[in-house]
Amino acid sequence: MDNHINKKNILSNIKNPADVKKLSDGELELLCTEIRQTLIDTVASNGGHLASNLGTVELTVALHKSFNSPEDKIIWDVGHQAYTHKLLTGRYGAFSTLRRENGISGFTRPDESEHDSFYEGHAGVSISQAAGIAAANAIKGSKNYAVAVIGDGSFGNGMAYEALNHAGSTKSKLIVILNDNEMSISENVGAMARYLAKVRSKPEYYRFKAGTEKTLKKIPVVGESLAKHIFKLKATLKNIIYSSSFFEDLGFRYIGPIDGHDINGLCEAMNSAKMISVPVVIHINTLKGRGYDFAEISPERFHGISRFDVVTGEPASSSDSYSAHFGKTLCDFAAKDKRICAVTAAMALGTGLDEFSKTYPERFFDVGIAEEHAVTFASGLSAGGMLPVFAVYSTFLQRCADQLIHDCALQRKKTVIAVDRAGFVGEDGETHQGLFDVSLVRSLPNTTVYSPATYAEMSKAFYNAFYKDDNLIVIRYPRGCMPETTENVETFGDYSVIGSPDARIALVTYGRLYFNALEAKKLLSEKAIEIKIVKLNKIKPVPEESVEAVGGCDAVFFFEEGMRSGGVAEGFASMLCENGFSGKYSITAVDGEFVSHARVSRLMEKYSMSPEKMVLLIENEVALWAKN
Amino acid sequence: MDNHINKKNILSNIKNPADVKKLSDGELELLCTEIRQTLIDTVASNGGHLASNLGTVELTVALHKSFNSPEDKIIWDVGHQAYTHKLLTGRYGAFSTLRRENGISGFTRPDESEHDSFYEGHAGVSISQAAGIAAANAIKGSKNYAVAVIGDGSFGNGMAYEALNHAGSTKSKLIVILNDNEMSISENVGAMARYLAKVRSKPEYYRFKAGTEKTLKKIPVVGESLAKHIFKLKATLKNIIYSSSFFEDLGFRYIGPIDGHDINGLCEAMNSAKMISVPVVIHINTLKGRGYDFAEISPERFHGISRFDVVTGEPASSSDSYSAHFGKTLCDFAAKDKRICAVTAAMALGTGLDEFSKTYPERFFDVGIAEEHAVTFASGLSAGGMLPVFAVYSTFLQRCADQLIHDCALQRKKTVIAVDRAGFVGEDGETHQGLFDVSLVRSLPNTTVYSPATYAEMSKAFYNAFYKDDNLIVIRYPRGCMPETTENVETFGDYSVIGSPDARIALVTYGRLYFNALEAKKLLSEKAIEIKIVKLNKIKPVPEESVEAVGGCDAVFFFEEGMRSGGVAEGFASMLCENGFSGKYSITAVDGEFVSHARVSRLMEKYSMSPEKMVLLIENEVALWAKN
Repeated sequence: MDNHINKKNILSNIKNPADVKKLSDGELELLCTEIRQTLIDTVASNGGHLASNLGTVELTVALHKSFNSPEDKIIWDVGHQAYTHKLLTGRYGAFSTLRRENGISGFTRPDESEHDSFYEGHAGVSISQAAGIAAANAIKGSKNYAVAVIGDGSFGNGMAYEALNHAGSTKSKLIVILNDNEMSISENVGAMARYLAKVRSKPEYYRFKAGTEKTLKKIPVVGESLAKHIFKLKATLKNIIYSSSFFEDLGFRYIGPIDGHDINGLCEAMNSAKMISVPVVIHINTLKGRGYDFAEISPERFHGISRFDVVTGEPASSSDSYSAHFGKTLCDFAAKDKRICAVTAAMALGTGLDEFSKTYPERFFDVGIAEEHAVTFASGLSAGGMLPVFAVYSTFLQRCADQLIHDCALQRKKTVIAVDRAGFVGEDGETHQGLFDVSLVRSLPNTTVYSPATYAEMSKAFYNAFYKDDNLIVIRYPRGCMPETTENVETFGDYSVIGSPDARIALVTYGRLYFNALEAKKLLSEKAIEIKIVKLNKIKPVPEESVEAVGGCDAVFFFEEGMRSGGVAEGFASMLCENGFSGKYSITAVDGEFVSHARVSRLMEKYSMSPEKMVLLIENEVALWAKN
Repeated sequence: MDNHINKKNILSNIKNPADVKKLSDGELELLCTEIRQTLIDTVASNGGHLASNLGTVELTVALHKSFNSPEDKIIWDVGHQAYTHKLLTGRYGAFSTLRRENGISGFTRPDESEHDSFYEGHAGVSISQAAGIAAANAIKGSKNYAVAVIGDGSFGNGMAYEALNHAGSTKSKLIVILNDNEMSISENVGAMARYLAKVRSKPEYYRFKAGTEKTLKKIPVVGESLAKHIFKLKATLKNIIYSSSFFEDLGFRYIGPIDGHDINGLCEAMNSAKMISVPVVIHINTLKGRGYDFAEISPERFHGISRFDVVTGEPASSSDSYSAHFGKTLCDFAAKDKRICAVTAAMALGTGLDEFSKTYPERFFDVGIAEEHAVTFASGLSAGGMLPVFAVYSTFLQRCADQLIHDCALQRKKTVIAVDRAGFVGEDGETHQGLFDVSLVRSLPNTTVYSPATYAEMSKAFYNAFYKDDNLIVIRYPRGCMPETTENVETFGDYSVIGSPDARIALVTYGRLYFNALEAKKLLSEKAIEIKIVKLNKIKPVPEESVEAVGGCDAVFFFEEGMRSGGVAEGFASMLCENGFSGKYSITAVDGEFVSHARVSRLMEKYSMSPEKMVLLIENEVALWAKN
């Protein structure tokens, strides 16, 4: 095709935000069309966040027209809706590498552009960051602005509220753009969402205001005292109507709601906000998925997606997954046990709970993007006699460390945490890798942690959690699905030894790395190197016997898909050490760095956890012995 | 003395809440007086929370008159204001053991009484817990109530907001009592506080409401259309007046403000709340310190205190402390470097920042009980060119794990965290021990962690943090002060070896356990056992050389005042293991349990970290060698 759109005549000439400022209204409109086409095509081939980015095209254009980045800081909450921002800040040329290894990240990254203020990926963070920058600007006497762009879903998050509460009591030059698309990832929940819906429509307030003023004018004056009271009534009414908003209660000036697809209207609101000397909230309405029919109709499905066919809107591939298996398992248990409840923090679809939510609506709780509350609410359900399961991505579990310690482990009330996306997640990169959950939960007393490799082990872990273990139980499993080649793999208990007990070399691991270990064992066997695998299923407490099983080995190789510091491999080492182990010990884990975006298989290789790299490490060690 | 008060005629006969229900108004008044006397006397001799407990005497009596504990659950946020609750639920007899080892805890504890629903100690938790119980009650069809009692300070906490936001959208039988004493621990900050002040006074709303209704009634009917409009006006007005509060925006029914020292008024409000089928907020006003002049005048000083003289209100002892040294150090640096800012989450006094807040008000930020925001706000200050220090107690650092990972370590923007109360804190017990911070921060990339033993090392660590290290720097130090006997102790760098490098036995430790180790070394030397101490100051990364320094030893004893799992001792073991260490290794740390309240010196002994216990462990080991 050779038409205008595919040439991207305007977009391809935007090298930085200054170029946006030069465009006419007509050109801006064309620019938006070109941007949308680029977004759809790129996400269709690379996967990524589509609906949210289609919703923020005009907003981004207006921001770069109204503010001077990078002196003014534009901060994108979560950072997944910043694709247009990337296209307008010199990254159009590289945009086809979106989410690919060494390519453009799906989130903002300061090392990618001076226009990206922070690495983003988690919700509710931007107001705090912007408030900090605004406070620093005040100290320095700088006139620059700090702008946080945050979705309505994030507004249910406690951290965003803490930031509003604090910033609202200051005089800093802070502008918060509330990007209200009536969704977080799935349909929005909570009272704040309902409140926003009320403000959005606002007909009652506005009609009432207009009508009342007319009425008041018509009322005949019946005595001076009445007139006086009516005068006061009008003043007070005005006061109530204009200051009744949640945001004004918190000390912000409120502008809105504004049509988020009208560039001129947006610029007008932003320029007004710049002139106000206290923090401002600009409330804008946008349509998630705007401009791509399939995404407008199913914004949830087009939130974060894999590659898809642009014409049909169908995903390039679909498959079974650990998440799906979790959802099915939980429904099975819930059918037999009426105490089982499910809790999610705005991730019903992602964690596989959609079926549960439909079958058992009275036992299903979506609390919004509020992981802290979710955990403690679950513990409250437990105190009330239920068997609650909170399903959460590993990266977001970081949000509720204290709640796990103080509100679960300490309470000794049974609460189950299903940790999805544990380990490498791939293309979402640094902010989303599930590498910290193990070190986070390992230090907790009264806690059992499972890291099953297979669906069957996963089901068993949930059975144990519900009917055998006490207190806090954490069951973690990776993104995606079991390798196809391992359908008939054996199901093990808390740990297992695979291979000859007499082997002098042991490979210890847990979770899905077990499949890599199996492959490595086969490859090594072909080279006449026999190893035994010690596969852990229960990683806290580590079964004493699993340590004893390798005590006499010449070499123990521990592979861990997580952080080395605080991980199981360190704990295993200390147990070996205390048992008087004197062989060679080696840990392969992620050590002291954040992991960038790339396919999981590539990350396995990069961090020496692929079967081939396992073989290499062990082979080299054996060669070294031969030499000595 | 033999007067009525000291006999506690009424209080001593209260065995459970049913006894409270039988009392006449006059007896209730006497009961409150007896309770106050008991609170003052006990805290004067045992230390504890005084001001907040003096403020909730009538509230507690009203709660136990209006609700049926333990069927109805009364949940005390933070749990430090539940002394009266303890006195009314069968614990009067044991109350003199408050905060003593094996005695009554200063916080609620389910293992102490069936009337205590949860172990409490952290702020903002109670609404989530009560919401969970209320949801469970709904599922079970139970008619019982769940009541959360929470202070206005906790209302600035994000978690409380998340819970309100979620619960406000449900129909559960949840009652939230907002105990508004215009303070959290020190004077309250933030927009929510200002909002509550507005509601508290509320004259405008109330006068307006009364006046308007009268006026509307007086308006003559001029034509049908006008009459219709006036009818609508009345309805809408009512709607606006009653639903304009923050809480009604969030879906709660609002009752208040109520005088929190009027038992009958309180009971009336509670009984009204019981009849409403949606969640209710009862907003009550109380006076912190009520009934004890010194505490009314200085509630902050009488929040959590050590023993004091009842007559003079003066503390039994006062001393220098790590906190005080931190405050002084930070002021010294700030005098020379205008970039240095201090951030606290409602703990200016506790963390030693009072002087800083007065000397550098423009660089001092108290964000309220909002640790999540505090960390990310600090990172924002850093992005704006400042050098921020967030001072926080170790136990509350748990609240911001994700912010440390995602908003600090990942961002590579210099942020300093001053972690106070790291290690055993003593009488405050399980919820306040600082035992998890090390395992929490050890797994973070781009992070340096210091655990100085002396004031001088502490100053040096801050110097390094400001001018040598990059990214996230954590400096942790204990509650209380340096041991007096060690005034002339040497100042070391990242690590040091004390004793002969050739010693076959090494004792590795960090932080204040170093002083115990020194004492142990002396005692062992007297028994002709020579050891070397390896003292770590930088505990992340652990200096390689410190590991090498013990590589050739026959035995290495690691003592750690923190959790074993994920701690430094495990990491040290793994490094030794990888270096081919073949000696004996032993870890002494807190392992798999929460630590109850008792004096720090007693805890040191209990967990085998006192000099005497160190000696015993090492001596036994040597004896074992002699045998073999």
